[in-house]
Amino acid sequence: MRPQDLIEKKRDRGELTHDEIAFLIRGYTRDEIPDYQMAAFLMASFLNGMSDSETTTLLEEMLHSGIVLQHDEIPVPKVDKHSTGGVGDKTSLVIAPVVAACGLCVPMISGRALAHTGGTLDKLEAISGFRTDLSLEEFKAVLKKCGLALIGQTREIAPADRKLYALRDLTATVPFRPFIVASILSKKLAEGIDGLVLDVKFGNGAFMREFDDARKLAEMLTQAARSMGKRTVALLTNMNQPLGRWVGNAVETMEAIEVLRGKLDGDFAELSIELSAQMLIVGGITTDLAEARKQVRAVIQSSAALDKFIAVIKAQGGDPSIVDWVGATYNLEPYVKYSAFVASAQTGFVRGIKTDEIGRIVMDWGGGRRQLTDPIDYGVGLYIHAKLGDAVKLGDLLVMMYFNDKSKLEEMQTRVRAAYEIGAEPPTIEPLIKEII
Amino acid sequence: MRPQDLIEKKRDRGELTHDEIAFLIRGYTRDEIPDYQMAAFLMASFLNGMSDSETTTLLEEMLHSGIVLQHDEIPVPKVDKHSTGGVGDKTSLVIAPVVAACGLCVPMISGRALAHTGGTLDKLEAISGFRTDLSLEEFKAVLKKCGLALIGQTREIAPADRKLYALRDLTATVPFRPFIVASILSKKLAEGIDGLVLDVKFGNGAFMREFDDARKLAEMLTQAARSMGKRTVALLTNMNQPLGRWVGNAVETMEAIEVLRGKLDGDFAELSIELSAQMLIVGGITTDLAEARKQVRAVIQSSAALDKFIAVIKAQGGDPSIVDWVGATYNLEPYVKYSAFVASAQTGFVRGIKTDEIGRIVMDWGGGRRQLTDPIDYGVGLYIHAKLGDAVKLGDLLVMMYFNDKSKLEEMQTRVRAAYEIGAEPPTIEPLIKEII
Repeated sequence: MRPQDLIEKKRDRGELTHDEIAFLIRGYTRDEIPDYQMAAFLMASFLNGMSDSETTTLLEEMLHSGIVLQHDEIPVPKVDKHSTGGVGDKTSLVIAPVVAACGLCVPMISGRALAHTGGTLDKLEAISGFRTDLSLEEFKAVLKKCGLALIGQTREIAPADRKLYALRDLTATVPFRPFIVASILSKKLAEGIDGLVLDVKFGNGAFMREFDDARKLAEMLTQAARSMGKRTVALLTNMNQPLGRWVGNAVETMEAIEVLRGKLDGDFAELSIELSAQMLIVGGITTDLAEARKQVRAVIQSSAALDKFIAVIKAQGGDPSIVDWVGATYNLEPYVKYSAFVASAQTGFVRGIKTDEIGRIVMDWGGGRRQLTDPIDYGVGLYIHAKLGDAVKLGDLLVMMYFNDKSKLEEMQTRVRAAYEIGAEPPTIEPLIKEII
Repeated sequence: MRPQDLIEKKRDRGELTHDEIAFLIRGYTRDEIPDYQMAAFLMASFLNGMSDSETTTLLEEMLHSGIVLQHDEIPVPKVDKHSTGGVGDKTSLVIAPVVAACGLCVPMISGRALAHTGGTLDKLEAISGFRTDLSLEEFKAVLKKCGLALIGQTREIAPADRKLYALRDLTATVPFRPFIVASILSKKLAEGIDGLVLDVKFGNGAFMREFDDARKLAEMLTQAARSMGKRTVALLTNMNQPLGRWVGNAVETMEAIEVLRGKLDGDFAELSIELSAQMLIVGGITTDLAEARKQVRAVIQSSAALDKFIAVIKAQGGDPSIVDWVGATYNLEPYVKYSAFVASAQTGFVRGIKTDEIGRIVMDWGGGRRQLTDPIDYGVGLYIHAKLGDAVKLGDLLVMMYFNDKSKLEEMQTRVRAAYEIGAEPPTIEPLIKEII
């Protein structure tokens, strides 16, 4: 087999066999096939499409390019959740301890903040001392002890994906569903899970703005994961405003702790409960969603979930005192020096929030990354006081801002104000969860 | 500007500006843009197409990536001919001295044999001592002295084309008209010519088998060359049988000398005269084709063209005694040890010749190259005794074979016989020149 012949086949709209895709991915992972041939193949696939069978093979080959964990020593089902990325989405920090407290095992490997979206790892690292760079040995030990563990990508997991992602990023071949599916699932399935809940977001804070695009991705993800023998559910959720009240790193961790301490009102708590309940179902704890929700609420109200979170913080080297700071007001002193607010310049209703712009404001103020090697200011945070549909009067608080870099204050106030659309009529509020697949 | 943004634009069917294409080609030539980004751009262009304006810019940038010769010290128009490649096509060896003898200047930079097609350089190098690797200084000196010079590609000419061609070869992006046009013309226009005659071949010995494909290429080539201010004519010529009687290197050089010595019957002489006459027209010698043909015949009959050929052989270090060997029979002794023949197994008419297979037989017997670094056996040659439409009886001669490697004789006899289609009815003979653009 020669790579150029397989590129030609895809160029001419042919369907590649299992062996042909395996040849390409294995050769590329071993540096035997050069970047330029893989780049031509990626672009030909992007423009001519890949069949379901090709996508599944791509996923399998990327998955088996590295270690696929097995947890035979842990006798309960292993489940995880994956989100396609949003603004203010800290559900993982609630879900993992909740689901572990309900008796399942959660081997969670997460990503970092990138572009306008946040990353679970950065939120966790806002906890003093918390190590997300455990070795796979350490990861397994924490998992066995706590029923959950929270780390970042390691070199051993899906190396083909890491190589391919870097190449896709530089060759304009990222936004193609079969590649996205294979990239997401190769990393998630390497965790050694039995079931997976997918949170596929649409709207102006998501990577897929259109519901139909997100729905197609959700269908392809569930189909591919199920074809690999995993129980899988996908929720299509609305990302037309930040999830919850807070956007940032330390502030989102505190907001998650607030939910674990029993504050169960609002969209963030609602989504956390729904995703957790679906995880109990794919994990086989129950088949009844109402019962699953009840169990989730119970482990929060009993503090069992908060105890799990404290346990995993300790097991991963972090300082659990952060859970005590969260009371009537957050203690942001260790993180930020300044605060300021943005008030409404009009009277009316919040009709729209440019959610991606809210994410970019936090990023540009130091709370996110343009490139994966950029440092992060964990303290930067926005409190979204006015949410979609809220009535505001002239001078009312829209957003509180917490920050360390005073020089950008004026710019950021202007940008936050411009991110709000205030109008005379109240907007139609879309449901948080639009569809379950 | 970032390469990935330009790749994305082409991926999404956008038209790149002059500056954007210039940025890509200049960056790539200077090794600032990596192969993998160029590979993705090539495939996106291949699948989404390039506009005429993009193609012209690509051509201009590839042309100016290296030296563009100027011959201000030579006061006559400079013209050249380019063929898209065929089997038995030795017209350049006739045309260059003929047109020079008619008073024009022919700065000819040619290629080597590749795949089933022959290359002018290899035919010239069958002349003992002939140097095709002159420096550009030497090239200009020979040109000034003789009115013609015959060399191969140099490092200084269109380096972007050399880099891009190697990449296209490995990324399945060769057969795309805008790339072919830019590749051909960037090298030809770098010769510093005022006019160009294109021999665009179709049929089973050409790279484009279908007339319509060849016609589209001819139109795009003439349009692009004219947009660069060059007087250009394209002939669409039939390559459904080898041109002339001989296929090989030394044997084709001898056949060309035979024409220069006045043997003007047959398709090879006809095409040589037509292409030469068109060169006189694009060179401004006359506007009347009949008059141009007359001048071409005159310089052959007066031996002026043969004298030009002898002069250029001497100027480029070759042994001109080869022109004296060509008499009633060729003197092949310096080149080959063996000969054999293939006779017809049927009585009937020659209805078809697999022309590409004839070329491959010569190549596989050592007379051609699979890769540009392969050595060549200059002596291997086939004499095509039976041409399309000829009546043959059982046992009549089809092909004489001259060779050094006896071990392949039986295989080659079988292949030559299989390349002939003999049937009861005479075939319709297509004209040699189907259209002039």
